[in-house]
Amino acid sequence: MPAPEFFQVTPVADALKLLDAHWQPQPRAEITATAAALGRILAADLHSPEQAPAFRKSTVDGYALRAADSFGATQSLPAFLQVRGELKMGEAPQLDIDAGEALLIHTGGMLPASADAVVMLEQTQSIGGRDVEILRAVAPGENVIQAGEDVMPGAIVLPRRHRLRPQDIGGALAVGITEAAVLPRPRVGILSCGDELAKPEANLTPGMVRDINAYTLSAQAETLGAAPLRLGIAADSIADYRRRAEAGFAACDILLLSAGSSVSARDYTRDVINGLGAPGVLQHGLATKPGKPTIIAVCEGKPVIGLPGNPVSALLVARQLLPHLVARFQGQTPPAPARIRASLSQRVASVSGREDWAPVKLSKRADGKTMAEPIFGKSNLIFTLIYADGLLCVPLNTGGYDAGSIVDVELF
Amino acid sequence: MPAPEFFQVTPVADALKLLDAHWQPQPRAEITATAAALGRILAADLHSPEQAPAFRKSTVDGYALRAADSFGATQSLPAFLQVRGELKMGEAPQLDIDAGEALLIHTGGMLPASADAVVMLEQTQSIGGRDVEILRAVAPGENVIQAGEDVMPGAIVLPRRHRLRPQDIGGALAVGITEAAVLPRPRVGILSCGDELAKPEANLTPGMVRDINAYTLSAQAETLGAAPLRLGIAADSIADYRRRAEAGFAACDILLLSAGSSVSARDYTRDVINGLGAPGVLQHGLATKPGKPTIIAVCEGKPVIGLPGNPVSALLVARQLLPHLVARFQGQTPPAPARIRASLSQRVASVSGREDWAPVKLSKRADGKTMAEPIFGKSNLIFTLIYADGLLCVPLNTGGYDAGSIVDVELF
Repeated sequence: MPAPEFFQVTPVADALKLLDAHWQPQPRAEITATAAALGRILAADLHSPEQAPAFRKSTVDGYALRAADSFGATQSLPAFLQVRGELKMGEAPQLDIDAGEALLIHTGGMLPASADAVVMLEQTQSIGGRDVEILRAVAPGENVIQAGEDVMPGAIVLPRRHRLRPQDIGGALAVGITEAAVLPRPRVGILSCGDELAKPEANLTPGMVRDINAYTLSAQAETLGAAPLRLGIAADSIADYRRRAEAGFAACDILLLSAGSSVSARDYTRDVINGLGAPGVLQHGLATKPGKPTIIAVCEGKPVIGLPGNPVSALLVARQLLPHLVARFQGQTPPAPARIRASLSQRVASVSGREDWAPVKLSKRADGKTMAEPIFGKSNLIFTLIYADGLLCVPLNTGGYDAGSIVDVELF
Repeated sequence: MPAPEFFQVTPVADALKLLDAHWQPQPRAEITATAAALGRILAADLHSPEQAPAFRKSTVDGYALRAADSFGATQSLPAFLQVRGELKMGEAPQLDIDAGEALLIHTGGMLPASADAVVMLEQTQSIGGRDVEILRAVAPGENVIQAGEDVMPGAIVLPRRHRLRPQDIGGALAVGITEAAVLPRPRVGILSCGDELAKPEANLTPGMVRDINAYTLSAQAETLGAAPLRLGIAADSIADYRRRAEAGFAACDILLLSAGSSVSARDYTRDVINGLGAPGVLQHGLATKPGKPTIIAVCEGKPVIGLPGNPVSALLVARQLLPHLVARFQGQTPPAPARIRASLSQRVASVSGREDWAPVKLSKRADGKTMAEPIFGKSNLIFTLIYADGLLCVPLNTGGYDAGSIVDVELF
């Protein structure tokens, strides 16, 4: 039996910098329907093919007129105009006005050529027949949006690398951009390895456990907008492990290997990764708990991460690495995790030389104070994370937090 | 032409309370694969069909033994045990131990019947042949997880109304729960109305604009985990509007009507809603800008919202109402929007009797201060929201914020 593993550990941030130095993602843009592009990242600036608005339009319900015809009009001394009719929505004006005339117009309606302003309905008085009193003077351009006032043809509506929000989709569609070049979602391959692993739907025989890393990690990838790709379970044989890793590697942009608990599976992971291409393993060992035996690698221009087989470790390490990888693939900065400030109910110790992540349960006290209760337990099962609302990070070399400390809890 | 619209406006929170009083959603659970249930809400408690772990397992790499055989062992006075072999991962032990014997075991491996503890590899010394020195005493149960220590059969793994996170999916799968009863995503129907509206892919004729509310509102619904259902564009005719609204209403759980700008379309909306069933319109007019002419209704047990046709108003009102509706449909509390504190670059005025929402652009000053710059402009087009990073709410009857005020900006 080989000696226990000793690593030259490095802080997570340093390991990511090392990885970045060897990884320059060049994702190829793909064309997608704008209407289906929520959350996607633009691969190129979006230029407007047309002006917006496309025509001069009224911003109110009222009468389109020549502003000069309203000059001097007041409540006590209104201007009288003849109403030539009503402008229909959705059509070019069939009517125009001469001096002394007006046309009823609705919000969003297109102004006739000779009108240069709109007076609001509330500032008029119909006096029967075809006449209307104008009770207030309007300036040229008043209550009118000029054609192209919002966007000129060729203008950049949205810049490259922008993540599309609901209003961006609306804005692009408003100027007729129905397709957009976006960056692909990174395909995150996930391969588990271990003779003890069974699929979740299996009837367990004694000694077997269900492979859940494939599912927690793909769910984690999904929350980040990546496209997870479950690659199945490799047996504790270097040949099977290598074969499945190679096939998966070819099909994905980021590869996660979650090695089973057996020593052989752990040993194999390093070799399997190095076999995927240069430069291979960059770092073995992170200064974080859980997650110490993590492997950081780049092979043939793709990041490969060797995660611990333990489901808690695998998920907590993925939470630290995957947001960075997915964001960098798309030229983004990873979003800051949501945090809440809470008072710690009991001491959380920490060992020098590593950061510690402790699951915590949050609760509100009668006095309104938010309390964070660390969830301890020797079990490495996923249930400590299920009972938790978030994670407390004890940074490197701080010696832990005392009971009563005010801490920032990273929310799930 | 009818008189301009005057409403008895009510604050948004009051309108939602009124709606809640008439709306008791009874969503019918649906069965989904656990692996595909990220973000879904459990319709019922999840009970574990089995215990976890399923068997007594080692938490370390080491030797399974009888703890009594290690009693008194120290570095200087080790206990000697005979190694009977190695336990394979994923199998029930083919071997057992007698007093004075040990079996090599890996992390996660199943303990043989007669072993009651594991000593870590690091605390042993192989002395060649089949003997091993035990350098430290272990207590019964040390480095062992008992069967059922994490979850007992029948225990509630996750409670009703819980939203599934990556670890929850893993935990459920760990105990073999491969399907779960979850609440359906509410189907949010969106119907636009107006003769001036064209589909985004249309070549615009003069006077026409593209219908973008269908897309901004469906994207907004999507961000909330709802299932949007675009119902197309109704013409400015009560018959067509009614026909499309009725068909859409039958197919959705929440109906949004976005009435075009013409007076007739606005007038029709109220009648169309009342035609969908009792009690019908509950409130017409919200004390919020933009969004004043919004209609709040419940028809035959479904909420129906009449939104302004203006894209900015429609989206900003939907942001205020839809999170509540989607959350309530699923028995949840709407998530608090992400906010950032910023210093206001210029005064934002507000009129008494309503709350005001102003789009703002955020920037970091050289001194690290976050500045919020309000985006003004008479235009009602969606572009003011595209250039914005978030929204500033000036609450009811506060008279606005002065330049330099420290404000909370709700992020998009």
